[in-house]
Amino acid sequence: MDEQARFEMFAFWRTSATYRVRVALNLKGLKADERFVNMEAGEHHSENFLKINPMGAIPALIDRQAGSTSPPITQSLAILEFLDETHPASPILPAGIYGRARVRSLASMLVADTHPLITPRVVTYLTDEAGMDAGAIRAWRVNWFTKGLLAFEQRLATEAETGTFCHGEQITMADICLASIKIVLPIFKIDVVGTPIINRIFAACEQHDAFINAAPSRQFGAPV
Amino acid sequence: MDEQARFEMFAFWRTSATYRVRVALNLKGLKADERFVNMEAGEHHSENFLKINPMGAIPALIDRQAGSTSPPITQSLAILEFLDETHPASPILPAGIYGRARVRSLASMLVADTHPLITPRVVTYLTDEAGMDAGAIRAWRVNWFTKGLLAFEQRLATEAETGTFCHGEQITMADICLASIKIVLPIFKIDVVGTPIINRIFAACEQHDAFINAAPSRQFGAPV
Repeated sequence: MDEQARFEMFAFWRTSATYRVRVALNLKGLKADERFVNMEAGEHHSENFLKINPMGAIPALIDRQAGSTSPPITQSLAILEFLDETHPASPILPAGIYGRARVRSLASMLVADTHPLITPRVVTYLTDEAGMDAGAIRAWRVNWFTKGLLAFEQRLATEAETGTFCHGEQITMADICLASIKIVLPIFKIDVVGTPIINRIFAACEQHDAFINAAPSRQFGAPV
Repeated sequence: MDEQARFEMFAFWRTSATYRVRVALNLKGLKADERFVNMEAGEHHSENFLKINPMGAIPALIDRQAGSTSPPITQSLAILEFLDETHPASPILPAGIYGRARVRSLASMLVADTHPLITPRVVTYLTDEAGMDAGAIRAWRVNWFTKGLLAFEQRLATEAETGTFCHGEQITMADICLASIKIVLPIFKIDVVGTPIINRIFAACEQHDAFINAAPSRQFGAPV
């Protein structure tokens, strides 16, 4: 029988934020026992899950080596920083302070300024309270994905540090966050045009087992 | 004549994200020459400013000690991490890895999952494209501020690490991000009820010069 994994993760197959953590775990050779939270059935709003994360958001990571009073770690960027601090091999931040700042800034452009706008809770509000129909929801998603990715592309195109990956030759949080957006676009049947550098970098990421094995379509619960 | 400050910051008096950076600079005894970007006049969408930040968002921090090819640092959380790495005195993250994870998670709940939903660009879209009137916009803002702050309060109420501040007895990023939301609520004439711990912590922050001097009402451009 396998040794128990150090981590336990409340997860759903499709979410961009869970994908980010799966990639980071894979890059660092770590395993997490996944506990399936069926977001389509609203399980993330259940009383039990709200004890894990009062925000009702996926993922939540439990480190079995933490004390019992240590709360689950939520928010994908906080989890990525945590994994990089506890497992510094295969770093996902550059060594230099300016590089670290650039990578964190790029990551936040997508995780803080783009992704929160297209999450299910927002779409539910817009549908139920603002009366948006499917076409208007699609236009909303297209708008924010496009704005976020075009601004990201503009930085990649004009900043000297851009390399094979977003920041030089090493995979960082910025690539993980970029891939987490790119990988969900087909699920929404959305194509953002005018992003050749992003497309090149995403293609490079998709060569890596860490990204391949994190793909939503390969997770438990995904449509077969 | 004063020595030139190390930092230069593109800023606007009212924004929550700029406030976060001002507090962190104050806590660490740092100065930034502020360059006023008049968001009410749309200057953050000007060609000149989009060269500084293609996302069109405030703040953007320039470190005059960085090389000329180093891009401005954008995104408030990335800037807070940068300032904490370059100026570790008066740290805004705890020393322990689980504490750091908790503080980053709390900060992201507000900066990534709450604040992006009520920014001017989102409100403009909802007004122009979804036909939301002033009442509907107010309901939208109330909804996300309430959801974010009540989830935050729930964590403070149930997690052992909560102290005088969000995490023990030391001011951290979590307090800075919490205060950045609390301080803009009166601007929107919004009151979220049922958050006694948040109110107590915000009151403790407001005793500190670092927070007092960062208040939007004290900045250049604020209504007199």
